[in-house]
Amino acid sequence: MRQARYNAYAASCPTRQALDRIADKWTVLIIGLLGQRPHRFGELLRGIDGISQKMLTQTLRSLEFDGLVSRRVEPTVPVTVEYSLTATGRTLTEPLDAIRRWAEQHIEAVLAARSRNRPRTAVPR
Amino acid sequence: MRQARYNAYAASCPTRQALDRIADKWTVLIIGLLGQRPHRFGELLRGIDGISQKMLTQTLRSLEFDGLVSRRVEPTVPVTVEYSLTATGRTLTEPLDAIRRWAEQHIEAVLAARSRNRPRTAVPR
Repeated sequence: MRQARYNAYAASCPTRQALDRIADKWTVLIIGLLGQRPHRFGELLRGIDGISQKMLTQTLRSLEFDGLVSRRVEPTVPVTVEYSLTATGRTLTEPLDAIRRWAEQHIEAVLAARSRNRPRTAVPR
Repeated sequence: MRQARYNAYAASCPTRQALDRIADKWTVLIIGLLGQRPHRFGELLRGIDGISQKMLTQTLRSLEFDGLVSRRVEPTVPVTVEYSLTATGRTLTEPLDAIRRWAEQHIEAVLAARSRNRPRTAVPR
């Protein structure tokens, strides 16, 4: 089933590094917003509650470096910088949306499990 | 489109925490293996190249606490411990497999972008 050439289960495989990059909560949330339409930096910052300016800058830089996000600078005063998905970046929206939807749909089951498990016994069942 | 009640874009929403838990490379790889069949600890350790024993233990414990993985202890000598997905955990296999497949399918585009972007200029395009 898995492609023979690339295998994320091998530590030395570059897909492992790609997996590390995209399996990240900030990436999921940024790609989710950019999948709707291009956004300016400040819009992303306001749209993702709790992300720091530094983390947003770093994550956008990595996504740009990896060819998933493109940055367009408009020569306005002050300069306007707009971020959008590249063609490769757009292929990520579907799988990452599915992850976000999963979190939203199954959180009640997860919270229920957590409260069941809280007073944990040391003895295995 | 998003459910009104839960919203991963809000920092205080529990789905944000769930997203953080599942958007993780080790979770993706562990759930991927357990989606095939139950595994013993040592099988997981050998199957996921580069994961440390400590990281595997921690991630399994979190997944168990969240009700996604169950642990069955067989009273053999020595004790056999087997991990498998719960019903909720099984709902994660499809979205997480899609992430792993994405990494395996698009890594060449990502590597090409990286080599194009390597000698980066400080001036925006």
